[in-house]
Amino acid sequence: MQEIIKDLVLKNNTKIFLIVLDGLGGLPIEGRTELETARTPNLDALARASATGLHMPVSYGITPGSGPGHLGIFGYDPLRWQIGRGVLEALGLGVELRNTDVAVRCNYATVQEGLIKDRRAGRIATEKGRRLTERLQKEISRIDEAEIIFTHGMEYRFAVVFRFPEPLDEGSAEVNDTDPQKTGKPPLRPVPSNHQSERVARIAEKLVERAKEILKDEDAANFILLRGIAQVPSIPAFEEVFGLKALAIAIYPMYRGLARLIGMDTPPVNGDIREEIEFMRDNLQDYDFFFVHVKKVDSYGEDGDFEGKAGKIEEFDAFLPDIRGLNPDVLIITGDHSTPSVMKSHSWHPVPLLIHSPYVLGGLSQAFTERECLKGELGILPAVNIIPLALANSGRLKKFGA
Amino acid sequence: MQEIIKDLVLKNNTKIFLIVLDGLGGLPIEGRTELETARTPNLDALARASATGLHMPVSYGITPGSGPGHLGIFGYDPLRWQIGRGVLEALGLGVELRNTDVAVRCNYATVQEGLIKDRRAGRIATEKGRRLTERLQKEISRIDEAEIIFTHGMEYRFAVVFRFPEPLDEGSAEVNDTDPQKTGKPPLRPVPSNHQSERVARIAEKLVERAKEILKDEDAANFILLRGIAQVPSIPAFEEVFGLKALAIAIYPMYRGLARLIGMDTPPVNGDIREEIEFMRDNLQDYDFFFVHVKKVDSYGEDGDFEGKAGKIEEFDAFLPDIRGLNPDVLIITGDHSTPSVMKSHSWHPVPLLIHSPYVLGGLSQAFTERECLKGELGILPAVNIIPLALANSGRLKKFGA
Repeated sequence: MQEIIKDLVLKNNTKIFLIVLDGLGGLPIEGRTELETARTPNLDALARASATGLHMPVSYGITPGSGPGHLGIFGYDPLRWQIGRGVLEALGLGVELRNTDVAVRCNYATVQEGLIKDRRAGRIATEKGRRLTERLQKEISRIDEAEIIFTHGMEYRFAVVFRFPEPLDEGSAEVNDTDPQKTGKPPLRPVPSNHQSERVARIAEKLVERAKEILKDEDAANFILLRGIAQVPSIPAFEEVFGLKALAIAIYPMYRGLARLIGMDTPPVNGDIREEIEFMRDNLQDYDFFFVHVKKVDSYGEDGDFEGKAGKIEEFDAFLPDIRGLNPDVLIITGDHSTPSVMKSHSWHPVPLLIHSPYVLGGLSQAFTERECLKGELGILPAVNIIPLALANSGRLKKFGA
Repeated sequence: MQEIIKDLVLKNNTKIFLIVLDGLGGLPIEGRTELETARTPNLDALARASATGLHMPVSYGITPGSGPGHLGIFGYDPLRWQIGRGVLEALGLGVELRNTDVAVRCNYATVQEGLIKDRRAGRIATEKGRRLTERLQKEISRIDEAEIIFTHGMEYRFAVVFRFPEPLDEGSAEVNDTDPQKTGKPPLRPVPSNHQSERVARIAEKLVERAKEILKDEDAANFILLRGIAQVPSIPAFEEVFGLKALAIAIYPMYRGLARLIGMDTPPVNGDIREEIEFMRDNLQDYDFFFVHVKKVDSYGEDGDFEGKAGKIEEFDAFLPDIRGLNPDVLIITGDHSTPSVMKSHSWHPVPLLIHSPYVLGGLSQAFTERECLKGELGILPAVNIIPLALANSGRLKKFGA
């Protein structure tokens, strides 16, 4: 479908806003969901004047991680473009990944007489871990043809990037984890699962050996374990496919990182919803498309804090007039997946969606809730269709066929 | 999609019930469908507390036979896995097919001077037919490398299985019918349509020749015609794909046979709904998944007996408290296809569906009917998604992607 869209794309001066309330969808407690509980007069009024529905992030019954959740709403089939754990971890730590990179999630561990004694090196403090990671970076900057880039995370965790001179063939990072997931066992060797992945496995093996040598005098953190070795996928750029110059506005690095994978501009932003809107206002003239990510809705859901999630939605509602005041031609409000507070986790449930533009029926949903959106003109639709609808509603798609 | 699901499957101790009211969906007479006419207080209450919708067995406008109808709700794409007529006939006669088998639907016929005089051998009585079939079995137990297994049906009809020592290549049963569908013509020769099907064609030809010799002194049934020559498909097992140990509870052999094709356990059960529920109760500890098939809803529909169909639905409704009393974690009630009494046949209409679990919105359908299910949170969805939803609702699917 992307190929078809690409051929139909037109340019104009319209502005499209995609506001993502992370983990938006919910389930009822005593009959009402978080959205049904929150007082959201602005969202409800907008829903009444918008095309409404629910989007399916991946497929029926499939609970998406943040990677597939965002790729879908950015217009990319999440079954076609899979993002490995190492890549997501590195993005979350703010690493600016390139399509020549392989990313790895790492742990410090304690190994004695060849056996793993502690898979987390006694949960060493973040400060201690950071000093060790800086030392590794100082001693190891290159292995074979790859530049090696270390980035510390929390406690015993860090990420490593192998940066190659050129993009690797598909399958080049198919190398097993070295963490056997149990103590009392020896660490595993990184073994290539095919011919293409031999280079990455060799570098991983050398990395483990050199780190072992450097860390040999440490009591706890005397070894490193590698997990989720993954290649940065060569995804076609958002602007190339959809003709939209795009700005991602997100407080958390992981979401900026996901946007950067498809070539959106992703300057860092601090603060919360207010600061995100100000940032959008300041950059309004320079972009066609604005992705704004509101994280805390999901965080409260993950914590099982039903009231907190409803409260965060109310807080967003209060800012909605400011957003509408920027006069977007197309305003889309949705989530990347559902996070029902009762489940304390992401879920498979479809996600409320509204698209506001001059070209909608409207009048079908009385409020912006799961159940009211079911009555809407968009029905339940795969998430990848949201961007084509945004293009259509902004007059950016030619007729298909004569 | 099955490949994705397979990688995400978790095991736990939940119980999933899939209750299939065969031919459930209907069309109105004087404004009300069978479901809208039947008094079903228990189903209606359950629908109000469940995720509701309608499933599309195959595709818009496509009326499914029993094979594709069931494969879809078992989570297998019915366009990918096709079940030949000979296989379905043999399953209906209770033959325990293996993946090394080719099954054929056969008729006794009358041939005079090389031309077919009667394609049904004067509709000989079942008793007579059975004696002839027993004689054929006694005289013919093997042709070339295949064991030959005869099973008599009604009147002039029977099934033959060619059981090979090993599974055959795809396309090995692509051999034409020998029935020209008209009297006054000679029977056709079984001709292979490709290289792989030469073995089966040769055996079919020898079978016809030998049967002709054995039956040469019969007045009416002096020949056999072969139709629907079909290979048993090598479908991946339900437990392998979905991680569910499954018990099929069905009175009619064909439905047990369909379940057996995907490796469900299929002990024979006698009686009706009451006995099926008792059987489920007795086996509750030994399985994860229970497929219960209620046939008569369809039978009344096929007979054009609107009141009878509504009555059978009411009868099922009265047993619903017993089913819920078994405390399934996920309870699914639907049909394999629609059978509107006004059409006296299967139809293409989507089929009412409810999924009851703790993780639903609910409150959208006021009753379990075609029109009320349209208001539900599941929308109209392809049938193959029902099992993934059952897995999600029972906590048996990991998150997809990081």
